[in-house]
Amino acid sequence: RALARMGNELRCQCTDTHSKFINPKFIQDVKLTQSGPHCQNVEVIATLKNGKEVCLEPTAPWVQLIIRALLAKAQSNSDTLL
Amino acid sequence: RALARMGNELRCQCTDTHSKFINPKFIQDVKLTQSGPHCQNVEVIATLKNGKEVCLEPTAPWVQLIIRALLAKAQSNSDTLL
Repeated sequence: RALARMGNELRCQCTDTHSKFINPKFIQDVKLTQSGPHCQNVEVIATLKNGKEVCLEPTAPWVQLIIRALLAKAQSNSDTLL
Repeated sequence: RALARMGNELRCQCTDTHSKFINPKFIQDVKLTQSGPHCQNVEVIATLKNGKEVCLEPTAPWVQLIIRALLAKAQSNSDTLL
């Protein structure tokens, strides 16, 4: 999905989203951006371990899974520390 | 929880996490960082609308809720566009 909102400083950051699976081991971090006046979509931007930034399709099941897996991992890290 | 890992370039970004509730309307984006050789914890860093960055406690229920709410919002945006 491509976004055509351009020409003002505050706009969507993703002009296109990647919906093909990316192996989580190549993903360094995932940023979820609120929708708002600058952009009507929630945007999900992954930084890969090679430094590349990729817009992910937030509705793709594997994207939702990766985010849930990160949350679950955070939870289990904390359990280990107790 | 404070982290003491210091002295090398690649280390945890959060030395402390914020576990008190922050109203989602003040949150611009939320970044989830993979654990790895640089840091044993999954880190959750929120950028507030005033530009301030805050480390969130990934295991706090409200933090998990905010992330799930963002995902759900992304899903419903996409439904509206269909």
